[in-house]
Amino acid sequence: MRTKLERIRADIEALAAFNATPGEGLTRLSFTEEHRKAAQYITEQMQQAGLAVRTDAVGTIIGRMEGTDPAAPVVMCGSHFDSVKNGGNFDGPAGVITGLETARVLHENGVVPKHPIEFIAMIEEEGARFGAGLFGSRAMTGRLGEQELATFTDPDGITTGQAMRAFGLDPAHYADAVRKKGEIKNFIELHIEQGPILENSGDAVGIVETVVGIKEVEVTVTGRPDHAGTTPMDMRADAFLVAAKTAIAANEAAVAVGEGTVATVGKLEVRPGSFNIVPGKVVFYVDIRSKSTDCIEAVLAAVTAKLNELTAGNGALSYALRMMVETKPVQADPHVCDLLAESAEKLGLTSRRMLSGAGHDAMIMADITNIGLVFVPSRGGRSHCPEEWTDYDLLQNGIETVCETVQRLACE
Amino acid sequence: MRTKLERIRADIEALAAFNATPGEGLTRLSFTEEHRKAAQYITEQMQQAGLAVRTDAVGTIIGRMEGTDPAAPVVMCGSHFDSVKNGGNFDGPAGVITGLETARVLHENGVVPKHPIEFIAMIEEEGARFGAGLFGSRAMTGRLGEQELATFTDPDGITTGQAMRAFGLDPAHYADAVRKKGEIKNFIELHIEQGPILENSGDAVGIVETVVGIKEVEVTVTGRPDHAGTTPMDMRADAFLVAAKTAIAANEAAVAVGEGTVATVGKLEVRPGSFNIVPGKVVFYVDIRSKSTDCIEAVLAAVTAKLNELTAGNGALSYALRMMVETKPVQADPHVCDLLAESAEKLGLTSRRMLSGAGHDAMIMADITNIGLVFVPSRGGRSHCPEEWTDYDLLQNGIETVCETVQRLACE
Repeated sequence: MRTKLERIRADIEALAAFNATPGEGLTRLSFTEEHRKAAQYITEQMQQAGLAVRTDAVGTIIGRMEGTDPAAPVVMCGSHFDSVKNGGNFDGPAGVITGLETARVLHENGVVPKHPIEFIAMIEEEGARFGAGLFGSRAMTGRLGEQELATFTDPDGITTGQAMRAFGLDPAHYADAVRKKGEIKNFIELHIEQGPILENSGDAVGIVETVVGIKEVEVTVTGRPDHAGTTPMDMRADAFLVAAKTAIAANEAAVAVGEGTVATVGKLEVRPGSFNIVPGKVVFYVDIRSKSTDCIEAVLAAVTAKLNELTAGNGALSYALRMMVETKPVQADPHVCDLLAESAEKLGLTSRRMLSGAGHDAMIMADITNIGLVFVPSRGGRSHCPEEWTDYDLLQNGIETVCETVQRLACE
Repeated sequence: MRTKLERIRADIEALAAFNATPGEGLTRLSFTEEHRKAAQYITEQMQQAGLAVRTDAVGTIIGRMEGTDPAAPVVMCGSHFDSVKNGGNFDGPAGVITGLETARVLHENGVVPKHPIEFIAMIEEEGARFGAGLFGSRAMTGRLGEQELATFTDPDGITTGQAMRAFGLDPAHYADAVRKKGEIKNFIELHIEQGPILENSGDAVGIVETVVGIKEVEVTVTGRPDHAGTTPMDMRADAFLVAAKTAIAANEAAVAVGEGTVATVGKLEVRPGSFNIVPGKVVFYVDIRSKSTDCIEAVLAAVTAKLNELTAGNGALSYALRMMVETKPVQADPHVCDLLAESAEKLGLTSRRMLSGAGHDAMIMADITNIGLVFVPSRGGRSHCPEEWTDYDLLQNGIETVCETVQRLACE
């Protein structure tokens, strides 16, 4: 019989083979042949672990272990199995395999929980095909709308609804995926950290207390495109200098407000973009994340204040803001966090309470249930790239912590 | 008989009609049908002004007025008649028409100069078709090479040599265009300012004393692309922050060293360029121009010092520099400058000694002769765009100043 480590490794490697870009990282977009093959593998593994498997109206795979009280609210555990383009083997699958492995262990140990347990594998969390992301969890919590299915398209112009139909799902039934508040007791997700904190601290398991809120704002600075050789420094309206100083201000404000707040300018375009023309327009994006809404607002206020300061007194300089993303911080359930910490301790593992700076399906599921979110270390903090990696024994630490916790939640 | 103003206006409007992009600014690339028609117009106008017209080996049109001493060195006057893509009606043609109008006036007045005068119309100064620019003047001064003709291509993959052949010129004879040192007494060029100084000061004529030196350096900053949500501020290697602070340092250094020194970051690319990824690489260009080589070096030193400061102590941050353009400042001839100032004064016009922040054919011609470069005001300082404009009476001021000066130079 294979060890747990061997099973985990086999699952990761099996799923990694369903890949549209072998040799260039993992690409498994939703409603594709890679998706279909991966879903088949997951379904078979669930069935071998004694689960009753179905697929919900939008494609989420649900493997159910019955409880002694079939009417009791469900403990749910899992993550997503789609990927970004040219990503890695762990973002998503690590959490799906956590469900598979937990099901196997409970099945082998003959555990009969009081609450039914549903092990789930969601799709289109990344939004890499249709742009929106968190698809399975939004469908389950009633946040998915008919308009999105009819109008959101992939780069080939295929709508989400058309892709579902070609995959064998009827988009008209999307609302059948909705689960009601009270129906689900807990949602427990394991995910790779995608950051450097656990690797640096040496802790085995991260227990997320808060998923950060996000404000992403598009800033357009308009100046005047002038000849870079013939326009004196004091007669310019240089849109890039305004953008550069604003980006620095956002950065400094995030450091100043603290509480783990981060601000990033990762996308910026200079127009007309010639080495010998003073920039006439710059469009850039400030991404602000924090567990504290006040901190997010403070950074945004610093950005706005800097833009006002820099454009005041120069009639040729102006700016405009457009809010692109706006989510509030989400809290994990304190009781679940405590159980996760106790489970880790029982297994002899160090754990660390932490923030999640990225959004995950658990963040959406918090709308209708009490969530727990567990992180395992990411080598070098890398993610969404072929180098994304978590050693299998480190992944096993997280999986065993979740397994123990799910069993407790299902039996309490 | 038409007034001088009417003739100038008619010339500008006639040349503006030879345009590949009517309604979207002027586009007249080298060795095209628009080029051929404009050349024909210029040739006819030169012939009507009594000039003996020929085209040199690379396409420069030369209209010669014989002197009483045919062996005396030539006074040369003119500019270029190619354009950028979607440019204006004045950049280049203003100086060509200055030659035409000067020839007409001398012809009408029966002036017989001691020195021969050659009125010239060059091509491919902008480099808008083959990328290199200053083509006619480089050919005339021996700076053009066979390799360039064989390897520089337009966006359709046509080499300069192929385009010349299709136009009726034999590229093998390119060296026949070379004029020797001593053969040309002066080169006088009128050009629009392409900046705001004359408009702001109200002076009629700018007399360029120095064409700035240029250093354009490509800076590549390498950092580490990390997840913008999960990577704490103190664990980042953000390539864009380094670029932003370096651009600001370049700007401040240019202001600090003074002497009209300018520094511009007009082109910048952020990679991977996603709003939620910390920039892993930024490539940008610092364009530094000054009449003083020391000032250029001081700004470059400030850029390098800032890059060293920002990348020191973070092993994940590094930078590399690549010199893209490097020209030394060029001086106009003091005697020519004095004659230009005297001529303007005689005409009742205010003049102003100034810098040229842009390169022109005169800058190249300074290799083999004593140059003079005259600026006329550009409305709003705008150039290389459809809005490029100089009022015809303001252009006439410059033309008459050049006409008076050319006559004096040819008769002294």
